[in-house]
Amino acid sequence: MRLAIDAMGGDNAPKEIVQGAMDAVSEMKDLHITLVGDEAQITPLLTSKTNIEILHADEVITGEDEPVRAVRRKKNSSLVLMANEVKEGRADACISAGNTGALMSAGLFVVGRISGIERPALSPTLPTIDGKGFVMLDVGANVDAKPQHLVQYAIMGSIYAEKVRSIPKPRVGLLNVGTEDGKGNDLTKKTFKELEKAPIHFIGNVEARDLLDGVADVVVTDGFSGNIALKTIEGTAGALFKILKETMMSSTKTKIGAALLKNDLRGLKDKLDYSEYGGAGLFGLASPVIKAHGSSKSRAIVSAIKQAKYMVDHDVTNTIKSTLKSIDIDKE
Amino acid sequence: MRLAIDAMGGDNAPKEIVQGAMDAVSEMKDLHITLVGDEAQITPLLTSKTNIEILHADEVITGEDEPVRAVRRKKNSSLVLMANEVKEGRADACISAGNTGALMSAGLFVVGRISGIERPALSPTLPTIDGKGFVMLDVGANVDAKPQHLVQYAIMGSIYAEKVRSIPKPRVGLLNVGTEDGKGNDLTKKTFKELEKAPIHFIGNVEARDLLDGVADVVVTDGFSGNIALKTIEGTAGALFKILKETMMSSTKTKIGAALLKNDLRGLKDKLDYSEYGGAGLFGLASPVIKAHGSSKSRAIVSAIKQAKYMVDHDVTNTIKSTLKSIDIDKE
Repeated sequence: MRLAIDAMGGDNAPKEIVQGAMDAVSEMKDLHITLVGDEAQITPLLTSKTNIEILHADEVITGEDEPVRAVRRKKNSSLVLMANEVKEGRADACISAGNTGALMSAGLFVVGRISGIERPALSPTLPTIDGKGFVMLDVGANVDAKPQHLVQYAIMGSIYAEKVRSIPKPRVGLLNVGTEDGKGNDLTKKTFKELEKAPIHFIGNVEARDLLDGVADVVVTDGFSGNIALKTIEGTAGALFKILKETMMSSTKTKIGAALLKNDLRGLKDKLDYSEYGGAGLFGLASPVIKAHGSSKSRAIVSAIKQAKYMVDHDVTNTIKSTLKSIDIDKE
Repeated sequence: MRLAIDAMGGDNAPKEIVQGAMDAVSEMKDLHITLVGDEAQITPLLTSKTNIEILHADEVITGEDEPVRAVRRKKNSSLVLMANEVKEGRADACISAGNTGALMSAGLFVVGRISGIERPALSPTLPTIDGKGFVMLDVGANVDAKPQHLVQYAIMGSIYAEKVRSIPKPRVGLLNVGTEDGKGNDLTKKTFKELEKAPIHFIGNVEARDLLDGVADVVVTDGFSGNIALKTIEGTAGALFKILKETMMSSTKTKIGAALLKNDLRGLKDKLDYSEYGGAGLFGLASPVIKAHGSSKSRAIVSAIKQAKYMVDHDVTNTIKSTLKSIDIDKE
């Protein structure tokens, strides 16, 4: 198996990406990696070349680049050349910690969709209190979703949770404003009825306040609401940690208290650490494409590599393809 | 001025409601309160009758009642009779900590809308790190909103922030998936253009991750996304406090640390306490209608009473009315 990795994407590129790649090949058998990026920058960092090749790329797509335009114009960027390795069959999957929009565009225009999937979904795995986590999709690939898109998300998320996260009969919930059947806006009301017929273990509506309690293994939502939920979790957790820190530094007494709690609180932060769960898959593409968090360090890159490897090993793409073929989703 | 209060609504009714009413009339001059509910239960709790009257109600709408049906059938419920006091002009505003949906129905069908307002909005004030708070609307009164509804929310929220929260030139933001102009789904893209023309200080798109940092004084969103954002804030904060507590109780060492931090951490929880900010206004109704939090204690009831009083004192309803008349909102 070979993975193509954008060595230039993310806040800590190329150093942490290259380190993650080296760590991954030493951990996992039969794994070959193509690091795509500036050879002059990568070579000195690559202290072990076992199972790792470099594909030189002249250009880099930055966080400031307008996604669609960047993918069209920067044909020699690390991100586009990485996607091209997958398209040409030289790699089985790809990973980037760079510009999310550009990765979605490259996924769509270079890698291409699974036939029958209308809209790919950005699908991160988020932490829960019990440490098990849940997959939420879509969190922003498609902000004007239709019921049939959400049904496809549900199927893709369920297959991923079962095959890659090893959850038998994953509980699929629909993010909604109340738990009762019949609640919601036009989109969720229509989607609810379709999900009852879908080949998944649909548990009904779930509320945003129960997400981190692990109310479902897969949470389905449109890209707009999913983006709001994801960023609200990030923002609320960030705000609380900030005022918690301020509180702990406010006096000598609280500083002593904080010192006694330090190690255990670090455990708490780890519990909520995205990097343990790998990156966000772009489900619905013809091969696995993983968006690693922009601030990924080597450990997060290893997690994303594992995730991509499992998706290939367990043939997630073909399972999605055959499941979709076996059912007939009502189009609006 | 006279306020009608549903003495039977909420988890701590009638005790905390009656206590809150007595505290409020002793604090505020020219305030008269009608407590609506079971006289037999209220009378023993009412140790001071200064400026407080009881209006007996036989029935109670519970949290389990289906809202629209309950308002239609339970004509003698405390909630419906309370709304009726406003409708008949015997009270200037009303407050309930009971069934949110039923209060919205009673607001709509009994109190009635401001002419020109198509959809009222449920509008809580939420905490920010700096303690200033922000108004978010709508959080669930109307889950299928159109651009002109959001423009009306923006105007109502801005007037409320200025008149009641005393914020000069309130910053109004549109909740969206990115901060750049042109971002978003069909609804937010259209709304953005209308907000640029509205008589408010529109600061553009705001992201969910910046809400608690106080990115805007008024955050406008459709009822579905607003409900997701509100409940995600509640759920994430709740989950973090839960694991923080577990962490602090995990060993003797952490328990000592926690004891040293106890008082200051209580301050942190207070900072995030809704009850300081009053209840959620149902903006767009012909008179102020306030939904107090279901778990309201007397202090939260006092805050809600203050809020209702300010809305009456500063003539928020008529300001909304005249502002709407002065502009011409594009209907779709």
